Amino acid sequence: MRYLFLLFIALSLTAQAQEFKTTSPDGSIQLSVSLSANGNISYRVNYKTKAVILPSSLGMKLKEPQVNLDQFKLINVDSSTYDQTWNTVWGEYSSIRDHHKELRLQLQDKNSSGILMNIVFRVFNEGVGFRYEFPQQGKLAHFIVDDENTQFHLTGDHKTFWIPGDYDSNEYPYNETKLSQVDAFPASDAAVAISVRRPFNKNAVQTPLMMKSNDGLYINIHEAALSNYPAMDLVIDKKTFTLSSSLVPDAVGNKAYLAAPATTPWRTIIVSDKATDIIAANRMILNLNEPSKVANTSFIKPQKFVGVWWEMHVGLSSWDYSGGQVGSQQATKVPHGANTANVKRYIDFAAKNGIDGVLVEGWNTGWEDWFGKWKEDVFDFVTPYPDYDINELTKYAASKGVKIICHHETSGSATNYERQMDTAYRFMLNHGMNSVKTGYVGRIIPRGEHHDGQWMVRHYVRVAEKTAGYGIMVDMHEPVRPTGLQRTYPNWMACEAARGNEFNAWSVGNPPFHETLLPFTRLMGGPMDYTPGIFEIKMSHYNPEKKEQVHTTLTKQLALYVTMYSPLQMAADLPENYEAHMDAFQFIKDVAVDWDDTRVLQAEPGDYLIMSRKAKNSPDWFLGAITDEQARNFIQPLSFLDANKKYVAKIYHDAPNADWQKNPMAYVIDSFIVDSKTSVKLNLAPGGGTAISFIPATDAQVKSIKKYK
Amino acid sequence: MRYLFLLFIALSLTAQAQEFKTTSPDGSIQLSVSLSANGNISYRVNYKTKAVILPSSLGMKLKEPQVNLDQFKLINVDSSTYDQTWNTVWGEYSSIRDHHKELRLQLQDKNSSGILMNIVFRVFNEGVGFRYEFPQQGKLAHFIVDDENTQFHLTGDHKTFWIPGDYDSNEYPYNETKLSQVDAFPASDAAVAISVRRPFNKNAVQTPLMMKSNDGLYINIHEAALSNYPAMDLVIDKKTFTLSSSLVPDAVGNKAYLAAPATTPWRTIIVSDKATDIIAANRMILNLNEPSKVANTSFIKPQKFVGVWWEMHVGLSSWDYSGGQVGSQQATKVPHGANTANVKRYIDFAAKNGIDGVLVEGWNTGWEDWFGKWKEDVFDFVTPYPDYDINELTKYAASKGVKIICHHETSGSATNYERQMDTAYRFMLNHGMNSVKTGYVGRIIPRGEHHDGQWMVRHYVRVAEKTAGYGIMVDMHEPVRPTGLQRTYPNWMACEAARGNEFNAWSVGNPPFHETLLPFTRLMGGPMDYTPGIFEIKMSHYNPEKKEQVHTTLTKQLALYVTMYSPLQMAADLPENYEAHMDAFQFIKDVAVDWDDTRVLQAEPGDYLIMSRKAKNSPDWFLGAITDEQARNFIQPLSFLDANKKYVAKIYHDAPNADWQKNPMAYVIDSFIVDSKTSVKLNLAPGGGTAISFIPATDAQVKSIKKYK
Repeated sequence: MRYLFLLFIALSLTAQAQEFKTTSPDGSIQLSVSLSANGNISYRVNYKTKAVILPSSLGMKLKEPQVNLDQFKLINVDSSTYDQTWNTVWGEYSSIRDHHKELRLQLQDKNSSGILMNIVFRVFNEGVGFRYEFPQQGKLAHFIVDDENTQFHLTGDHKTFWIPGDYDSNEYPYNETKLSQVDAFPASDAAVAISVRRPFNKNAVQTPLMMKSNDGLYINIHEAALSNYPAMDLVIDKKTFTLSSSLVPDAVGNKAYLAAPATTPWRTIIVSDKATDIIAANRMILNLNEPSKVANTSFIKPQKFVGVWWEMHVGLSSWDYSGGQVGSQQATKVPHGANTANVKRYIDFAAKNGIDGVLVEGWNTGWEDWFGKWKEDVFDFVTPYPDYDINELTKYAASKGVKIICHHETSGSATNYERQMDTAYRFMLNHGMNSVKTGYVGRIIPRGEHHDGQWMVRHYVRVAEKTAGYGIMVDMHEPVRPTGLQRTYPNWMACEAARGNEFNAWSVGNPPFHETLLPFTRLMGGPMDYTPGIFEIKMSHYNPEKKEQVHTTLTKQLALYVTMYSPLQMAADLPENYEAHMDAFQFIKDVAVDWDDTRVLQAEPGDYLIMSRKAKNSPDWFLGAITDEQARNFIQPLSFLDANKKYVAKIYHDAPNADWQKNPMAYVIDSFIVDSKTSVKLNLAPGGGTAISFIPATDAQVKSIKKYK
Repeated sequence: MRYLFLLFIALSLTAQAQEFKTTSPDGSIQLSVSLSANGNISYRVNYKTKAVILPSSLGMKLKEPQVNLDQFKLINVDSSTYDQTWNTVWGEYSSIRDHHKELRLQLQDKNSSGILMNIVFRVFNEGVGFRYEFPQQGKLAHFIVDDENTQFHLTGDHKTFWIPGDYDSNEYPYNETKLSQVDAFPASDAAVAISVRRPFNKNAVQTPLMMKSNDGLYINIHEAALSNYPAMDLVIDKKTFTLSSSLVPDAVGNKAYLAAPATTPWRTIIVSDKATDIIAANRMILNLNEPSKVANTSFIKPQKFVGVWWEMHVGLSSWDYSGGQVGSQQATKVPHGANTANVKRYIDFAAKNGIDGVLVEGWNTGWEDWFGKWKEDVFDFVTPYPDYDINELTKYAASKGVKIICHHETSGSATNYERQMDTAYRFMLNHGMNSVKTGYVGRIIPRGEHHDGQWMVRHYVRVAEKTAGYGIMVDMHEPVRPTGLQRTYPNWMACEAARGNEFNAWSVGNPPFHETLLPFTRLMGGPMDYTPGIFEIKMSHYNPEKKEQVHTTLTKQLALYVTMYSPLQMAADLPENYEAHMDAFQFIKDVAVDWDDTRVLQAEPGDYLIMSRKAKNSPDWFLGAITDEQARNFIQPLSFLDANKKYVAKIYHDAPNADWQKNPMAYVIDSFIVDSKTSVKLNLAPGGGTAISFIPATDAQVKSIKKYK
């Protein structure tokens, strides 16, 4: 329901500055929009008593027609309130309340073009979203966007957690500096393990941009509903601390091709004086996205999966048939991973342990020569390697009640993929598969386009739409960073779109603080296929010469199943490594992948994070606590539990001498009876974590298991 | 059969210039290739006693790896002779002899790269073809071509018939100047009726480039087998009269992406002291193409067709449903052409007159907003307008034994078309259609690519391959200029790829010399869907305010069915215009579209052309004679006729007072008995022509019809 009411505005005929204000429903956030005497539009945002965004200009520059939309006449202003709760298909919450006030300025170019443009603000208790809208009009049909001139004028030299602005990659490790210390080029240069990088400005950073001000505000800037537009990077003016929008260009330098009626994505500012509120406010991003366009969602099933995948990253087997393609450079040839017998081994493991899916990479021909040369015709998505008996495996998986998850690596050749999507998806369905992991390693074809430009943004949406049409779930690797489109396309289960666990296998990896940051950054836009669950942590296990390791303890890997949400959640390690630690693997078996509720309990970006979640349609709760390289101790009340229940809390925690570098695999598992009045002590080793399952206790358990104290 | 013999070469260890020579089988053409002391390669060509190409350098510049391939070591030279005759699927000849000598230089980069490259020459009696080959090798796999440095050093300031070098359009009127007078920019600027033009150098021209030297040689430069490379334009050095290759770049400025083994297209030089030989030598282009890759050619059927098409060009009806899209700008709305009743009218006319096909344009939704804005998602190729009852028309056409020819206008959005090709072709087959006319009006998407760049070259081939897979014939409009690929893909029946008859309906049009030139230029590469057969010549017939007209007499339009070969040949005018002249239309009914033999009888490029052809598997011959704006009289011996037969010659000729401007529709039809000893007088009006059918005479006819004298 939207309650519309017109504002009473002094619309004088003489040119006078005008100001329009609204607040969040709870009043904590105040938005003010100004139209200056000469027609410029600016906005500012306060949180409680503090300024968040100082007056910041707004506008668009068009190329065809060539019009600078920066001076406006006001046609109308209206305001409305919206309050409605919607049910998710899957997610961190079974339902989400969308409660906001909207301020809609209908504007017209003050100069000769006469183009109509609206700027629409929505103010939630969590923050502000705004976008540009071009209504249907006689003055404008098709148009080309030259630039969007959106500013975010910050109040000071905030601490920020950033990765370089880049047209092609978001797989960077995070940097923690002041805004004034951002330097994108050396940060990009250092990231040698990323196959395609394209930084463009030394002062540019990507969104979601997480910041903390000196006066204690947590601020997150991102965008929502990026479906037909390039991604927005932010360029920092280090004198004024103003962030300016910078759109990823296309092959000829244009930014976007639109036709009225058209809207930009929402630009989002989430703010709170509590870090925990930021993560919880990822619902604001979802609220700014369109409801589901997928009519029949019955095929969509959140699930866990294992896969013929990590073994390539650690160098035990190869993607290609000839045995040369592994995650890390190595001279010796290894067996081809996706062979029938090996895949059956994963299917057996999945079936035995209640894991729904088995991902198989390297099943199709082409991996001998698949990227790095901007080659267009790479994979055909229907031709298995000779040692991959797809008919046999289709039957075998079905007989075991396990689904094989298909893999479509495009190597960045989106044109090749688009030509073959229908054939590829039919092939999948004909072979019992209804989930696919896609990949875009390599430079994009159409050549000159970028991973984060409008053409590819539309490509990803096209893949989501087409897979939906076939009843297929999709998990995209190397796409643009997510912006909540999983609400609109709930078969678009997950993305990579950040630096995943795989980097730990063959590069400098992800420092321990990485996972404490991702929920404040990348995950604001949607689920990440981070591939947690690595139990065999040091690569020297596979090859004594290797120095790489996952920057974690074993139980931190378990905690990630709670802190790092994905409805397609991998148990990424090898079956034999799980079989060596079946007591710890029990948590992965137990943990849910779809939730009724989520609580962000304690958090500081880059330092630590404690979250709990209630499994969907179940009384079970799960808790994850992680820390950076520092050992940390917490007291965590369990007040989120049902006050009327006793639970068996199974606590998977770091052993007292555990340490991500020196002793990463030392863990202890304890069980206690707890209830909502219990507070548990969480003792996290350096780079460590704790995972807890809370299952309602039987009377017998209440008697036999000791009470937590 | 290829007879290989090694040359005896003085391969001395000291660096000395070396020269390798071969000739055409008849000795008339002499090729000499030189390797200089410093490793540069050049070639020269003589015809009989005259120089054609002075020493001209050869080489390639690669970008990835960055190597300048202009200095070579000779690894090996061999030479061979080839003589074989192959049968065409359709064409101007039922069989073609491929008789040539080959000189193959195996070269290696003299500098550090060590890259192996061959330059292969084939010398025919008609001319020379040569190409660069990159064999499979350890030194080179994928590579990017930065430039091809091929020169054609001419002997003087030849007369030339040229259109501007251009990345996107070949729909220019021809210019006849000296090489030194070429000026591409004003020529391009003047061609305002072309929707997408992209000239790039004031001295650049397109191939096929037709020239005539002061010493009486006719020289034609083109290329053959352009299937995975950009098209080549030629840039003129006006001081030395050297033409240099210029490749159409891609979106990022690269020229071609190749992987060894790879070959460039053949560069072709056709030369003779007789103009007629040039046209006949289009077989050399075919001989340089690969044999058919289409295994089952039974679905391929050369045919004539009418179509709902010219009526849009003349402004009687529209492509779009709302009635605004017509060939010429006009304010008033007109009915939608592709409506069920109207299409039935064409089907009836075709059925009644033995015409095989009916093209229907504007049948599918999207024409209201289809080009000019670089819009990607335009047509879907499966959604008819509401007044186009496709099921009814499918039945109706089948009941009349007529095939509807489908139309797929892409507006240049090749990515959109590629996504939908499978669906579109299945839809065609499901609705009884097995021929499609495609179109690429508008700027290309992928944006930054060009009509004539490698990406689109590969797209056209992809369309040919995919239609072949579905058993569909294809006729492409606005593609790159043809290079004989119809031999390899015989379902690729025709292309437009030049300035067609349509320009006469709504622009300054095509001057009368245009059709006398096209067989020397555009048609060297393959059949053109020129859409001849316009009987109602002045547009004032449709609208008294219109000044446009076809630059022709009526019988010249008939002669074009002989001089302008296409296996998909349109009778482009409206049924009612044919019904007003059924005596003249008889020639279009009679004329063949597939031939056993072709004779170029008399010709001078830009002035006149007389050709005769023998119908496939038939004793019938047809003759076409056309002139430019000058009236011309010829005596034409009929020695091509079977010496043992008498024929009824039905002569469709200009009336004595006919004139393309003042009296274009005045014609006379005479019938005579002739034989191979007869010579006929051909009296062509200004802008006129004569068409003759030769059908073996019955005894009764020999008695009743007067003998020619």
